[in-house]
Amino acid sequence: MARITRPSGRNNSSSRVAFQGEPGAFSHAAALRVLGERANLLPCISFRNVFESLKSDSARYAIIPIENTLHGSVHENYDYLLDYGFVISGETSIRISHQLITMPGVRFRDVKRVFSHPVALNQCKRFFDEHKEIEAIPYYDTAGSVKLLKQQQPKDGAAIASAVAAETYGGVILRRNLEDIRQNFTRFFLLTKRPFSADSATGPQKSSLVFATTNTPGALFRAIACFALRDINLTKIESRPFRGKPWEYLFYVDFLVSDEKIAQSALANLKECTHFVKLLGSYRPTP
Amino acid sequence: MARITRPSGRNNSSSRVAFQGEPGAFSHAAALRVLGERANLLPCISFRNVFESLKSDSARYAIIPIENTLHGSVHENYDYLLDYGFVISGETSIRISHQLITMPGVRFRDVKRVFSHPVALNQCKRFFDEHKEIEAIPYYDTAGSVKLLKQQQPKDGAAIASAVAAETYGGVILRRNLEDIRQNFTRFFLLTKRPFSADSATGPQKSSLVFATTNTPGALFRAIACFALRDINLTKIESRPFRGKPWEYLFYVDFLVSDEKIAQSALANLKECTHFVKLLGSYRPTP
Repeated sequence: MARITRPSGRNNSSSRVAFQGEPGAFSHAAALRVLGERANLLPCISFRNVFESLKSDSARYAIIPIENTLHGSVHENYDYLLDYGFVISGETSIRISHQLITMPGVRFRDVKRVFSHPVALNQCKRFFDEHKEIEAIPYYDTAGSVKLLKQQQPKDGAAIASAVAAETYGGVILRRNLEDIRQNFTRFFLLTKRPFSADSATGPQKSSLVFATTNTPGALFRAIACFALRDINLTKIESRPFRGKPWEYLFYVDFLVSDEKIAQSALANLKECTHFVKLLGSYRPTP
Repeated sequence: MARITRPSGRNNSSSRVAFQGEPGAFSHAAALRVLGERANLLPCISFRNVFESLKSDSARYAIIPIENTLHGSVHENYDYLLDYGFVISGETSIRISHQLITMPGVRFRDVKRVFSHPVALNQCKRFFDEHKEIEAIPYYDTAGSVKLLKQQQPKDGAAIASAVAAETYGGVILRRNLEDIRQNFTRFFLLTKRPFSADSATGPQKSSLVFATTNTPGALFRAIACFALRDINLTKIESRPFRGKPWEYLFYVDFLVSDEKIAQSALANLKECTHFVKLLGSYRPTP
């Protein structure tokens, strides 16, 4: 594992990026996209573990999935964003494409068993319909199933995982893009303890915040008006329960920032008409 | 298991209510609340199974949890609401309160092991902190853990579950309301294949619908304005991904109906400014 390329140019051996899953997971691919090829990885067993790693300074960065275009938001991570109070410092989207991976020497006609996470297996139904002789075997993790091949070297085994997983464990991609629906993306946030700009010369393009309204008629309308009246485009709104206040809600919003002054006015306006607002971060998405 | 009391007064032995979980689950309590004491139960292993039971006419009603004030929405059920196209015909909220239950003859000082679902055990931390001699043992279901006591009759065993579960399996409640946070409610929908009014004389009080906006600035604002400009109170808004259209969303909303004509105008207005609207049901919540 090599070091992170930090945009400031300084080098720091403690600059790890925490993420959930095995090396080769889609979060690993997202970390590479945002932080560069030399990301120093800290794989974690759970999302809570990812947040705890950043809190304890075991990692300098965290990469978390926040929503998938087929399955929806990762609500656990929305809750942790507020609980831990870290800063959203970056964003990227990864197309979820599933590769059929074997260890070198195993040919396609040898493959009788395919290991992967149940969600990934389920997203490749057409492949299994067309190859009735191949058995789909549920495993705890996509990248972990390639790791299994590396450890056990089965002569008839393959895995479904990302191209990054193939590269991480020295696998060979036998078939590309097995997924039934190509329009499958996961959006990730880069989190840091303090604000961090990947490209400070050009300023942020996007911001995220969370607000709470009282349970009164028109409360959400007035809050959203703060953005709409300034032609600010909300790209996402997600409601979560306000714990301890039944039937009141927190709203997490992401919005595009084309003019920072106008965004500041919207924020000031929002504070007037809600009883809780917290800016979660301003950042430039990595395409 | 006795029959459902159908508000029409007719009697039908096929009038079952499908719900996820074992008899005695909180969904069972919700069914009793909405349909009366004589509900004819059809326990199901999954939420999909609940929807399939209504589709195949194995059940005449379905009860599904839609949101909890601590844990948020049951997103799987939101997706099924649109997929299956059933009608929301009723609603109720149940306070989630956890009772310590044993079989008759087991005293509190005998209890060394307490079985329950991990979420329920986690919601009763204070009880276990105060009783270090008692072990919390995770089990697949709250009501199922009372069923286990009935089947195995352990001399040192108890369960944490609802009062309905105690009644269902002939258990004894030794300690009431073990939950750390009393402000814990789950809201349930009653689903039917065709519109069904529990109290047609007085009309609905609440409606639910789902709409989709285009990914353009102000689109959500205009949709919500259809309600706000008519002083209609939105009690809930939930976004879900629009499958096959990355970064576009479906919005599920619940709103109070004090005047049906005004609600109809809002709906007509909403159709003008969105590209998809579907009314999911109009109903009177059961207090």
